[in-house]
Amino acid sequence: MKKRAVVLLSGGLDSSTVAGIASLEHGFQVSALSFRYGQRHTIELERAKKIAAHFSLEYNVVDVNIAQWGGSSLTDTNMTVPTDGNDAGIPSTYVPGRNTVFIAVALSFAEAIGAEAIYLGINAVDYSGYPDCRPEYLAAFQTLANLSSKAGLEGNGAKLVAPLIHMTKVDIVKKALELGVPIDVTWSCYQGGLEPCGVCDSCRIRDKALIEAGRLDLASSYAQLGGNLNESPSS
Amino acid sequence: MKKRAVVLLSGGLDSSTVAGIASLEHGFQVSALSFRYGQRHTIELERAKKIAAHFSLEYNVVDVNIAQWGGSSLTDTNMTVPTDGNDAGIPSTYVPGRNTVFIAVALSFAEAIGAEAIYLGINAVDYSGYPDCRPEYLAAFQTLANLSSKAGLEGNGAKLVAPLIHMTKVDIVKKALELGVPIDVTWSCYQGGLEPCGVCDSCRIRDKALIEAGRLDLASSYAQLGGNLNESPSS
Repeated sequence: MKKRAVVLLSGGLDSSTVAGIASLEHGFQVSALSFRYGQRHTIELERAKKIAAHFSLEYNVVDVNIAQWGGSSLTDTNMTVPTDGNDAGIPSTYVPGRNTVFIAVALSFAEAIGAEAIYLGINAVDYSGYPDCRPEYLAAFQTLANLSSKAGLEGNGAKLVAPLIHMTKVDIVKKALELGVPIDVTWSCYQGGLEPCGVCDSCRIRDKALIEAGRLDLASSYAQLGGNLNESPSS
Repeated sequence: MKKRAVVLLSGGLDSSTVAGIASLEHGFQVSALSFRYGQRHTIELERAKKIAAHFSLEYNVVDVNIAQWGGSSLTDTNMTVPTDGNDAGIPSTYVPGRNTVFIAVALSFAEAIGAEAIYLGINAVDYSGYPDCRPEYLAAFQTLANLSSKAGLEGNGAKLVAPLIHMTKVDIVKKALELGVPIDVTWSCYQGGLEPCGVCDSCRIRDKALIEAGRLDLASSYAQLGGNLNESPSS
């Protein structure tokens, strides 16, 4: 019987690549976990489902509405997603407690099904500056996980695995291509549109890496039409 | 303006007492938070709402179904809630990751509304032996909380406060009486019945403390009729 793992799958480039790593490289029987948390870009859930199907993973969606109390431009449609390039500090797209809630639910799931690992697409190099994407955050969560659960206390708790944490975005693109991740299916845009906006943080970081990896053809229309990914389109 | 706090309110004796401490003793403007997580004893939510009304707290219920993958007799109706007294080890009523999920959601909520404290009814003395009720678990969560959030990194993260953690159950009963907690409204039973079973762990621990505090009148019918709270009713 194959060892089991849970993969937090948002349908973005990073988590889709991690799904490939867990299933193809590390040989786990993977249960993918997505969240309907009140995000404006629910298109990512359709994409996550397709990615799960691509790698033949069991697919699960959990509802937990952490958008109901606002606090982020990613969930609050009264706020605007920034499109003027990478800001200093923590941007408004940061969703309070999002990764903490997602990993907590994944721990519950992993313990119930006896999974020995939880794979995360967290990346601390080319990212939006969210506090809950850093190695020290992950280490603290592992400590908590080991103390929190029946399995953890028995020494069989799930390990939090973040294979991309120290990779650059262009290396992630290369890894995705190597694993056959259908990059055109993945969805990284923070906006709620029908195609990637090309100007939010997430699109900019992704497009830049795709171009650097020689795959302009996979970038957003904005990038393909020669949009400047480093500067504000309005400045 | 009053300082704000979040209270995790299950509707049980402990969390109801904590709601009284946070609002009456510590003077917080309290937002109470309950969870519909797939528990069989949803009656606790009606009770939590009444307790919140009693203390004039804002009341919120969040849905997050961590019962869908089974693993606990508290949520899985194919399993039986143990009624034969306090077992050694972690009992089957333990819900994988429950407190971790609840506290994670509370952190998200607290950060969004600017609450400076999260009050928890966790108790490590007269309890069911769950791993996620111990001081070391709470300390690890505080470390994580400080690292995980925008507010935490800015030094304004919510503090996890567990005023009952080192109290005996009888002292909790006394504190509840002192604060005017309507103990008859609180619900602690693990079963899904219309009145407390009197024989699950939670009822036994509660009834014993009520009797010790001289309030047999507030105990379950089983206790009032002279049921033995220390031994198995079937042995």
